[in-house]
Amino acid sequence: MKTDLDSLMQAHNFDALLAFGPGDHNPAMMYLTGGGHFTGELLKKRGAPPVLFCRTMERDEAAKTGLATRLIDDYKPMELLKQFNGDSLKASTARFQQMFADCGVTAGRVVVYGKVEIGGTFALLNALQAAMPGLTFVGETGNTLLMEAQMTKDENEIARIRKMGQITTAVVAQTADFVAGHKTRNEVVIKPDGTPLTIGDVKSRINLWLAERGAENPEGTIFAIGRDSAVPHSSGNPADVLKLGQTIVYDIFPCEQGGGYYYDFTRTWCLGYAPDAALKQYEQVRSVFDTIMSELKSGVVFKRYQERVCDLYEAMGHVTTRQDPGAQEGYIHSLGHGVGLNIHERPASGVTASDADVLAPGAVFTIEPGLYYPDQGIGVRLEDTVWMRPDGVAEVFAPYPLDLVLPMGK
Amino acid sequence: MKTDLDSLMQAHNFDALLAFGPGDHNPAMMYLTGGGHFTGELLKKRGAPPVLFCRTMERDEAAKTGLATRLIDDYKPMELLKQFNGDSLKASTARFQQMFADCGVTAGRVVVYGKVEIGGTFALLNALQAAMPGLTFVGETGNTLLMEAQMTKDENEIARIRKMGQITTAVVAQTADFVAGHKTRNEVVIKPDGTPLTIGDVKSRINLWLAERGAENPEGTIFAIGRDSAVPHSSGNPADVLKLGQTIVYDIFPCEQGGGYYYDFTRTWCLGYAPDAALKQYEQVRSVFDTIMSELKSGVVFKRYQERVCDLYEAMGHVTTRQDPGAQEGYIHSLGHGVGLNIHERPASGVTASDADVLAPGAVFTIEPGLYYPDQGIGVRLEDTVWMRPDGVAEVFAPYPLDLVLPMGK
Repeated sequence: MKTDLDSLMQAHNFDALLAFGPGDHNPAMMYLTGGGHFTGELLKKRGAPPVLFCRTMERDEAAKTGLATRLIDDYKPMELLKQFNGDSLKASTARFQQMFADCGVTAGRVVVYGKVEIGGTFALLNALQAAMPGLTFVGETGNTLLMEAQMTKDENEIARIRKMGQITTAVVAQTADFVAGHKTRNEVVIKPDGTPLTIGDVKSRINLWLAERGAENPEGTIFAIGRDSAVPHSSGNPADVLKLGQTIVYDIFPCEQGGGYYYDFTRTWCLGYAPDAALKQYEQVRSVFDTIMSELKSGVVFKRYQERVCDLYEAMGHVTTRQDPGAQEGYIHSLGHGVGLNIHERPASGVTASDADVLAPGAVFTIEPGLYYPDQGIGVRLEDTVWMRPDGVAEVFAPYPLDLVLPMGK
Repeated sequence: MKTDLDSLMQAHNFDALLAFGPGDHNPAMMYLTGGGHFTGELLKKRGAPPVLFCRTMERDEAAKTGLATRLIDDYKPMELLKQFNGDSLKASTARFQQMFADCGVTAGRVVVYGKVEIGGTFALLNALQAAMPGLTFVGETGNTLLMEAQMTKDENEIARIRKMGQITTAVVAQTADFVAGHKTRNEVVIKPDGTPLTIGDVKSRINLWLAERGAENPEGTIFAIGRDSAVPHSSGNPADVLKLGQTIVYDIFPCEQGGGYYYDFTRTWCLGYAPDAALKQYEQVRSVFDTIMSELKSGVVFKRYQERVCDLYEAMGHVTTRQDPGAQEGYIHSLGHGVGLNIHERPASGVTASDADVLAPGAVFTIEPGLYYPDQGIGVRLEDTVWMRPDGVAEVFAPYPLDLVLPMGK
């Protein structure tokens, strides 16, 4: 949790933390500041509160974070630019040297964060490294300090994710009502004007209903039918028409406006009726989903459940990526992932996940054991986002029916 | 333009180009691929077509770009991970070495692009640099090769920006009708339920109307009243109520769904009536705006117009940042900026802008000469997005009335 930041910096042997970029759509900066409409840098010495450096015209937005703020203009960037004959990299380097001195960061390891255009920041970090040899600038790979802090959520974060869950399932219900309210002709869903309802039509409604509720979907929405439903990250072809009896994978993962906390949710629908093959595949996924949900326990390593799912599917005769890492049909992705300011964060459940990725109290994660058969045109995935409560109960934030068949013409 | 990429790489002395990150909300990758729902890497040797490396589960999305694609799984990342005892950085480095070899990139300068979380990519680039000493990995600062290519737009890009302009002004008209349709009480705009209409209420409508038209506003929207209208990048306090006779700066800069092409547009409104001080400030801004619009000529260096605006405002007695770079009232930002896949791109108009930032045929840029007096609670900005056409005419994509007073109770 956020309150562990100093102790985590100590454990990871970092003396300071430097974050770049905007206060929105930038998970690290959002986490450290609470978010806002500004762009700047945040520097935190271990044991000291962070300082947010911002542009003069964004000072009011930056002040809303409640953090200590400093104006970049106080470092006289225009004078520095003149001093270095218009060399903006040298001018920025000089400014950062002064900022580090002002924050008392003079030696040790500095970990860097922020979602930014790589070019300029890569150049800047190389220049800072050369200019301040007493510091070591470190980019973390794999499980970063911040991802470790974010792996468990505090009450405020839980409330924000719960609200996103309620918004998400409300939009899913609206989508079901919208689709089911149409007529059909020759197994195709038809709009009042007589033309077929397309995936593009449905997606634009989804976007609208999300916006109406103060959410956005920067990563898009998956609404994919037939063969596309069996390619886990095909988002669906906007021109495809909605036909009865085909599997539709509807995976919706919106976040708060401005790129805040996410929710992640999937249902699989067959409109009107389900052919035997789709029903059988659904029943197998449903059985695995229900089994795992009933077995979730606080403190267990997440990937133990991935192994459990592989056991279950393999016993049913499906190929899994445990048997064949390159498999393109069967059970071909991992069971779930943490959800927060990133749509994918810790704990991870894949084979390469750390043993530290446990379902600890405060963890928020998805359970999504799908099956995919592109050659048959059948994909099924069921997914809920779960909170491991402090009392050891695994709670689905926003329960919603798991039914496969969506009856038409209601 | 995009067709100039190879010649620009030659001119900038780059032998290859490497881009990271998702195909949406990532200007460099969108520009190079056309965009899509995938995450991967793009490697282009100068003179050769780019190759897009993608994950197996995103292969169909990547294929839609029409580019040559390669599966990351073909490089057997899991086997590499085993080979390097679980060290993901070493495994990635080995994969990239093979990808570079496969694309025939064995020596020279490699420019890097992409909006990504800095930590992992900084570590990877440092590791690649150590592993392939024949290559030099370069992060550009200031005016990058890609920003130079993007400074002029082709027909397809112009059509997409024009459509965003039409969407933007349609939403502005809807906003005006919505606000004006309310009753007032004691100079405050009142909702049907008797409570005051807030900026938050208006903004949630704006988000809704944008989504309805297939647009999004990842950078937010400025709808700021009173003192906030005079702080150029205050986005407005959601809890503020709408009062008559105060300046409202309404700056809206949405982009295509998925983070595509932007439009940028500002009007300043006084609801019901305008006090003399606001009207005077508006008339001065309007006069400067009209003057500059009438003087725009193809091939002129953009910052010449910034100087022209400073001349005009200083003659009226306003302070400008030319006189005092730290000024916090008067004319305190630059005249405009290019618009495309980034809300701010080239050509730039500020004092540090290059002489290469000209209003060339194909340039798309804003004109937004505001005046700001926070202590008086008055800010005025007028902004249109302009296309310098090949025939030398500066065309506003989506004309809209510039009126200050928005009559209430229509």
